[in-house]
Amino acid sequence: MGRATELRRTLRIRDGVVSSRPDTLVGEEPLEIRLNGKPLAITMRTPGDDFALATGFLVSEGVIGTAEELRSITYCAGATADGVNTYNVVDVQLAPDVTVPDISLERHVYTTSSCGLCGKASLDAVRTTTRFPIADTPPVRVTPQLLAALPDRLRAAQRVFDRTGGLHAAALFSEEGELLDLREDVGRHNAVDKLIGRALQNGGLPLSRAVLLVSGRASFELAQKAVMAGLPVLAAVSAPSSLAVDLAAESGLTLVGFLRGGNMNVYAGEERIVLDGMV
Amino acid sequence: MGRATELRRTLRIRDGVVSSRPDTLVGEEPLEIRLNGKPLAITMRTPGDDFALATGFLVSEGVIGTAEELRSITYCAGATADGVNTYNVVDVQLAPDVTVPDISLERHVYTTSSCGLCGKASLDAVRTTTRFPIADTPPVRVTPQLLAALPDRLRAAQRVFDRTGGLHAAALFSEEGELLDLREDVGRHNAVDKLIGRALQNGGLPLSRAVLLVSGRASFELAQKAVMAGLPVLAAVSAPSSLAVDLAAESGLTLVGFLRGGNMNVYAGEERIVLDGMV
Repeated sequence: MGRATELRRTLRIRDGVVSSRPDTLVGEEPLEIRLNGKPLAITMRTPGDDFALATGFLVSEGVIGTAEELRSITYCAGATADGVNTYNVVDVQLAPDVTVPDISLERHVYTTSSCGLCGKASLDAVRTTTRFPIADTPPVRVTPQLLAALPDRLRAAQRVFDRTGGLHAAALFSEEGELLDLREDVGRHNAVDKLIGRALQNGGLPLSRAVLLVSGRASFELAQKAVMAGLPVLAAVSAPSSLAVDLAAESGLTLVGFLRGGNMNVYAGEERIVLDGMV
Repeated sequence: MGRATELRRTLRIRDGVVSSRPDTLVGEEPLEIRLNGKPLAITMRTPGDDFALATGFLVSEGVIGTAEELRSITYCAGATADGVNTYNVVDVQLAPDVTVPDISLERHVYTTSSCGLCGKASLDAVRTTTRFPIADTPPVRVTPQLLAALPDRLRAAQRVFDRTGGLHAAALFSEEGELLDLREDVGRHNAVDKLIGRALQNGGLPLSRAVLLVSGRASFELAQKAVMAGLPVLAAVSAPSSLAVDLAAESGLTLVGFLRGGNMNVYAGEERIVLDGMV
């Protein structure tokens, strides 16, 4: 079974001096997600929280929305020819009364987390699929000061990144700025799916009072996952894409980007940002 | 048709002062790649170089290796219900004598660019699939000084990043450090596929004398694409993953990470790095 980090011998070149030493690398292994025994997707991920990853992935894709819809999640023994369990294949069995969605494998809708032939179709698909429209009752409001404090809290809580420099991080904060959960993964979408999957397992969906912070950029895929989990606020340390902004605007999601050093850009849902007393 | 950048109104908060202004965002739209009319994959990409992206994707997946294997690439008209061409669906027709590979849609092998149930299987799949084993005749050799100069050259040549901050970049350099090609995309794998696709179109495959530099991290997927294109050297500004290092070591690929400020780590293939005169 793979691990979150692995050691490899490395040649270091620093200021013209060469040395050899072991380096800690972020672990990466494929994970196949099966739904009722049928292969659904393969993702390259950092081992760990695999059941949460599979669960969150299914939430992000609109297959499930509650823990009751799950019957079981197991690692598949015999996933290789010699019957060894690689811990890289997870089978999710839905509860008997849950309709298995018509998974259009030919369209790869579920693997790519995109869902259309143009941006508009992608937006429509998310909006019509989400089980958790952002209700905002009572309204979630956050100050720029609160948001500005989050990246340092995220960074302070990252354990693996400090050793590898190779991980994306995603964290959930309360509307008071308290760190609720943090996941790290070689794939940023996996880190978010692991957060969402753990929330479902803990009865925490929809995440209607939480702020999601991601360490990198905000793509359409990440905005989609936020919308599917009912999150009201997505903040990114780096830039958003055009389609992420469009999805946020259409879905009522507050999208903050370039959250650095107390500064930020608000791309959508600015009504949740308390601007009192600011010029 | 989508564009490389798009404008959106943004609320800027800088040093406690709020202002509203248009912000340039990186464009993101889905692209469906069809092979002989059959849907193969959907990727979220920055519009532009779509034929190169589709071509490079097929090289990365081992479907084609030469321009002669392509009959045509077209945007599909009528890709939506009302028959409008979204320029988001590309159909690649292979030459008549080219065997259409057994595309295992159920396994999503092609979409995820991963190919196994464990890391070892993923490595084996790439090694047995590549058409361009790294021959290294005559040997490609680069100095740390040459490598150290590349990130600044990449950065200087990035046009869209300066306006959006939201793009991954990938560039090809000659073994003398000359910039050969540069692509930017919201997805790092797309940027590399665009480079490889353009190389194929220009008769430049295998890229057996080139250095590939990526602006971010080096995942298994990026190392796979380098190996499939016959590249001898992959350099990344940030960290590699464990599986990327393992693939490089098994495939004879030189993998350099944390290439910053004249320093770097060499994770595999150190025989191509000229260390003469270094302590």
